[in-house]
Amino acid sequence: MRYPMFVLVASILTLHAGSGTRPIGAAEKALLPSWTAGPTRSAIIEFVEAVTREGGPDYVPPAERIATFDNDGTLWVEYPIYTQLLFAVDRVKELASQHPEWKSQQPFKAVLEGDRKAVAATGMKGLMEIVVATHSGMSEEAFAAQAGEWLRTKRHPRFQRPFAECVYQPMIELLSYLRENEFSTYIVSGGGVSFMRPITQTAYGIPPEQVVGSRVATEYQVKDGKGMVVRLPKIDFIDDKAGKPVGIQTLIGRRPILACGNSDGDFEMLEYTTTGNGRCLGILIHHTDGDREFAYDRESHVGKLSRGLDQAATRGWVIADMKRDWKRIFAEKSRKVLQ
Amino acid sequence: MRYPMFVLVASILTLHAGSGTRPIGAAEKALLPSWTAGPTRSAIIEFVEAVTREGGPDYVPPAERIATFDNDGTLWVEYPIYTQLLFAVDRVKELASQHPEWKSQQPFKAVLEGDRKAVAATGMKGLMEIVVATHSGMSEEAFAAQAGEWLRTKRHPRFQRPFAECVYQPMIELLSYLRENEFSTYIVSGGGVSFMRPITQTAYGIPPEQVVGSRVATEYQVKDGKGMVVRLPKIDFIDDKAGKPVGIQTLIGRRPILACGNSDGDFEMLEYTTTGNGRCLGILIHHTDGDREFAYDRESHVGKLSRGLDQAATRGWVIADMKRDWKRIFAEKSRKVLQ
Repeated sequence: MRYPMFVLVASILTLHAGSGTRPIGAAEKALLPSWTAGPTRSAIIEFVEAVTREGGPDYVPPAERIATFDNDGTLWVEYPIYTQLLFAVDRVKELASQHPEWKSQQPFKAVLEGDRKAVAATGMKGLMEIVVATHSGMSEEAFAAQAGEWLRTKRHPRFQRPFAECVYQPMIELLSYLRENEFSTYIVSGGGVSFMRPITQTAYGIPPEQVVGSRVATEYQVKDGKGMVVRLPKIDFIDDKAGKPVGIQTLIGRRPILACGNSDGDFEMLEYTTTGNGRCLGILIHHTDGDREFAYDRESHVGKLSRGLDQAATRGWVIADMKRDWKRIFAEKSRKVLQ
Repeated sequence: MRYPMFVLVASILTLHAGSGTRPIGAAEKALLPSWTAGPTRSAIIEFVEAVTREGGPDYVPPAERIATFDNDGTLWVEYPIYTQLLFAVDRVKELASQHPEWKSQQPFKAVLEGDRKAVAATGMKGLMEIVVATHSGMSEEAFAAQAGEWLRTKRHPRFQRPFAECVYQPMIELLSYLRENEFSTYIVSGGGVSFMRPITQTAYGIPPEQVVGSRVATEYQVKDGKGMVVRLPKIDFIDDKAGKPVGIQTLIGRRPILACGNSDGDFEMLEYTTTGNGRCLGILIHHTDGDREFAYDRESHVGKLSRGLDQAATRGWVIADMKRDWKRIFAEKSRKVLQ
C-alpha cells in the first residue's frame, strides 16, 4: 500500500513536534501498555523523546544510547531467594554424596538443610562460594546447556511458571521500547553471566554479548583436538555494587545514559549513570505489591533497598512502584520468541 | 519504484544459486576490491556465501555470525614495534623526571635509551609493565582522551601517516563486507582495550563494546560527586595466546565462526574458532611485502608467526599473503568516517 504524500508529511511533522505541545495520540497511548499512566511512565517517555529528538538540546546519538538493567528483582523475580541460588541448591543436592564435608560447612550446610534464610544471609559472597563449588569443572558450553535447561523447566514455588518466564511484562515492554528507539539494552547483574546468557535472548530479547555479570575464572583447554573454555573453581569478578561500573567499563566501554535497578547493589550503577554529562535517567523498581508479587525493601534478606530510597529524590531518580505503576506483573502466557 | 514480479523472482533465484555454477557478475567483482582475485579472496567469499545462504547446509543465523580480528599486524601496522609501546615510550619520557629509578630498571631503561629491540624483547609482559607504570591513576575517560589524541596525531616513522590511519585497506573492506552480511565484527587483541577503543569506530567501524583486549584492574571512585572508573597500577587480564578464547567468552559469550590473526599469539583464537561445530574459517595474514609494508614471520621480534605457518595447511586455515593477495596496503587518503 502506498501512502499519499500529505499523510507522510503529516506523520513526519507529528514525529518531530515537541511532546509538551502535542495531545497524546493513539501511538503514544499504545506505548508501554502495562505501565499505568502517571508520573513514572511519563518520565520514561519524556526522557526517551528528549534524547532521540534530533537537533534538540538533549539529543544523544544512537551509538551512545546505552541502557543497563539489573536482573534479579528488576527484570525477573528474586524473592524469596535468588534464582541462581535455587539452581545451586539443586546442584549441591546432586553432588552432596561426593562431598561429605558439606554437612558441617557453610553455606553448604544451610543448603542441604533447606534453610533458605541462612543461605540468603551469606549474601552474594555465599552465592559465589556455592557457584565456585558446584558450577566449575565443565566447559562454558556444557554449563550453558545445564543452566538453560534448568531455567526453562524448573518452576517458581509460588508462581508455578518456569523461572525463565518469571520476567516482568512491564520491563519487557520497556526494553522493547528502548530498542525501538535505538538504545542498546544491557543486563548488568550480580548474578553469574554464564547462568543468564542461555535464556536472555528468549526472555528479554537481549543477546549473550549484551550481558554483564559475575564470573568464575576460566581457562582455555584442548580436549580431543577441540578447543574449549573451561570453568575453574575460583571467583574472577563480582559484578555487584561498585563492581557494576567496573563491569560496564570492561564489557561496554561507555557510560550508560539510563540505568535501572531495584536494590542497593545497583546504587553505584545508577550513580555512575546519572553523574555523567548530558541527559540521563535512573530508575529504581520498588517491590510494593505483596498481593501480585512480593513487598520488600529496607529490611529484606534479598534485594535490600534502603540507601536508594533515601537518596532517590535528591538525585532525581524515578521510583517505579510496582503496585501503583504496573498494570500487570507477568505476561498472560508463555512467550517463546521476543524481538 | 516498483519491480515487476519476474525481476524479483529472478533476483531471488540468483541469490540462492550455488556460487560454483554462477558466472561472476559485476556485484561479485566489486566485492573486496583491494584483494587480488585468487584462492584467498575466493575462499573468503565462498565462506560468507555458504553461511548466509538460507536453507543451505552451512547456514548460520545472523546472531551467531561472530567474526574476531586481532589488531596489531592484522588490522594495523605493528612493525617495527607495537603501536601501544610507542605510545608508552612517549609517556615514559614525559614521566621520567618523576622516576629516577627507571634509569637502571627494565623495561624502562631500554625505553629511555631508545633501545627498541630490547623493549620488544620484553614482549607482551614488558608492554604490560610499562602500561601499568604509565597508564594508571586516571579515569578511563581521561585515558581515552589521551590515547585517542595520540593515535590521531602521532605519525608512523616510515609511513608518515597518523597511527590511527596505519590500517590495512583490504581488512577495512573485509570488515565492511562481513557486516553487510550481518556478521558482528570484533577486535580481539593483545593490546590494551582502552588504548584501542577511542579510535576503533572511526578506523574500523567497530564500536567500543565490540573490542576485546588486555586490561589493567580498575576501581569505581566518586570525586566531587561524579562517579568514575579509575585505572589501577595492576594488570587484570592479558588477552593474548590462550587468553584470547577466554576474553572472547568473557565479553562475547559465543564461539566465533571466523577468526583472523597474523601471529602465534592468535593461534588459540583460530584453533578455538575452527574446532567448533559447523562451518568456520581461520585466516592468517602473512607479512611478505617488504617493499610496501614489512616482511617478517618465524624469527621476528614482533608478530612472530611460526606455529601457525606449520599447521595452517592441516587445519585448513587460509593464508592471506600480503604481497600476493593485497592490491594495496593503505587507503589512498585519510578516511574520516567509516560505516
